[in-house]
Amino acid sequence: MAEHFRDDSVAAVAVRIDAEHPHGAVFDPHQPQLRVTDLGAIRGDGIFETMFAVNGTPRKLDAHLARLRRSAAILDIGVPPAESWEAAVGLGLEEYRARGGVPEELAIKLVATRGVENEPASEDPAFAGTYWLMLTPVAESMRANRGKPLAVTLLDRGYDSTAAERAPWLVLGAKTLSYAVNMAALRHAEAGGFDDVIFTTSDGQVLEGPTSTVLIARAGGEGEPPTLITPVLETGILPGTTQGAIFTAAERAGWKLGYGPLTPEDLRAADHVWLLSSVRLAAPVNRIDEHELAVDPELTAQLNSFLDQDLPVNHPTD
Amino acid sequence: MAEHFRDDSVAAVAVRIDAEHPHGAVFDPHQPQLRVTDLGAIRGDGIFETMFAVNGTPRKLDAHLARLRRSAAILDIGVPPAESWEAAVGLGLEEYRARGGVPEELAIKLVATRGVENEPASEDPAFAGTYWLMLTPVAESMRANRGKPLAVTLLDRGYDSTAAERAPWLVLGAKTLSYAVNMAALRHAEAGGFDDVIFTTSDGQVLEGPTSTVLIARAGGEGEPPTLITPVLETGILPGTTQGAIFTAAERAGWKLGYGPLTPEDLRAADHVWLLSSVRLAAPVNRIDEHELAVDPELTAQLNSFLDQDLPVNHPTD
Repeated sequence: MAEHFRDDSVAAVAVRIDAEHPHGAVFDPHQPQLRVTDLGAIRGDGIFETMFAVNGTPRKLDAHLARLRRSAAILDIGVPPAESWEAAVGLGLEEYRARGGVPEELAIKLVATRGVENEPASEDPAFAGTYWLMLTPVAESMRANRGKPLAVTLLDRGYDSTAAERAPWLVLGAKTLSYAVNMAALRHAEAGGFDDVIFTTSDGQVLEGPTSTVLIARAGGEGEPPTLITPVLETGILPGTTQGAIFTAAERAGWKLGYGPLTPEDLRAADHVWLLSSVRLAAPVNRIDEHELAVDPELTAQLNSFLDQDLPVNHPTD
Repeated sequence: MAEHFRDDSVAAVAVRIDAEHPHGAVFDPHQPQLRVTDLGAIRGDGIFETMFAVNGTPRKLDAHLARLRRSAAILDIGVPPAESWEAAVGLGLEEYRARGGVPEELAIKLVATRGVENEPASEDPAFAGTYWLMLTPVAESMRANRGKPLAVTLLDRGYDSTAAERAPWLVLGAKTLSYAVNMAALRHAEAGGFDDVIFTTSDGQVLEGPTSTVLIARAGGEGEPPTLITPVLETGILPGTTQGAIFTAAERAGWKLGYGPLTPEDLRAADHVWLLSSVRLAAPVNRIDEHELAVDPELTAQLNSFLDQDLPVNHPTD
């Protein structure tokens, strides 16, 4: 297999899942794999998850698979059972071992599309679409930049805070492949000299980043632990697996937890703000538009050590 | 080439464009063509157009290519020049001729994606992404259903009428591949017994269908032609090429033209309503939720005969 790849030392490993290969089959991601009629490719009609694996162990595997299933239900896309995804992850890791070793840090992307219109890949709905995983070594540049404070701009997501509840066809709680707005918002931010974005509702609530969950901390009293607060899910944001894992560990450590609604003013008044994501981990924010924020490297390290515990995620809706 | 295809009599023809094939190269759409790392496939980060060709002549070619270029500019995606797309369309038609004849009616889809992240396909920005065309014979079922009245439901698009102007990162004027919401809205409508959707803003303006433009007619006085009205573009809807072509022909015929804003009440009070699209043409609406609307087959036929003239499109912003 390895001879198919251009550069084994940094190569990604790809695994597809189909009815004939319910436990996965390795393929070369440099070769075409998708038809141009796949609804994932021409309609953004699919879903995904991005997991983080350290030394060959995926973190929050159950939470990611549960959220994938939740996204699939919202979009009415059939997806293979958890055991298929788990076996395919195992196969990808095995492929790395056969090539000489599993990279210390991997991003593992799981993707499911609706497949080709009117041509289900299988009569079994669980295998009717197109399914694959990509395992990619985390870039040195991202590893080196972890903990580096981010300058963030607030951008209006166009929806008000009740849109998700009154208009389920907006599929706001699903992690879909239709990310053109998220990508455009990041380009807009970068053009203005910012590193990232926090979306707000048109009626002034804090939502999430294009690829992250927002977390704020309010300092406790003398000798008291801080309170961690994240926006409510009712606005249609994704339940963050990283936020959920931090909340579980923080609660066990005796910290206080809270859920929004949060406003931009709450962000500016917070002692600290982070953007949380599975691979970048807890990224501290030191600027929101013109407003400077203090960062606390020790507290960021504490959040990231919570993630090292890989505890089950804690969401108010679980 | 033809032996690659499963069923020549109904087969689609696919043509890719790249720096080595600036005038196109035919490929088999049943074979994989896209990498799983293509941003079109994993981020819905690309654009498209769907044209209609009758007896081998694409309609509104210039308007579709102009809108593709406009979408590309909004998303900052490089696209090949018009002559590449035109040559690739010609190549696709030639392929049909080589196989025994061009189908009477073809849908021609043009797609451009941002390509694979950090791996531009060419140093020339006009060829840095992934580009292809699909030519597909229009299904007998769609041809038979033309003119059949549609039952339509109004669905809230979640945005208010000023979102497009105040938040350009929502890329509302671009025809992107991120169509998960459009597809979910159509599924929602079908589950409720409707044929199609008209989106509205959260503040009560009429937008567009998931794959169509809204047109209403108000009857003229005795012996007077009707007035045709379509929603304003400032809400972020796509400038409809079919609507634009009808407006040009209608104006030449002495009809009156108007632009919204339109409200749901304007739809219900209209003498007739249509959904316009390049391949389905003018589709009359006979029900908007609980409200019945009259249809006028002669007027629908008149609109479709306007389209047969294939005149340049007329938009207030042109």
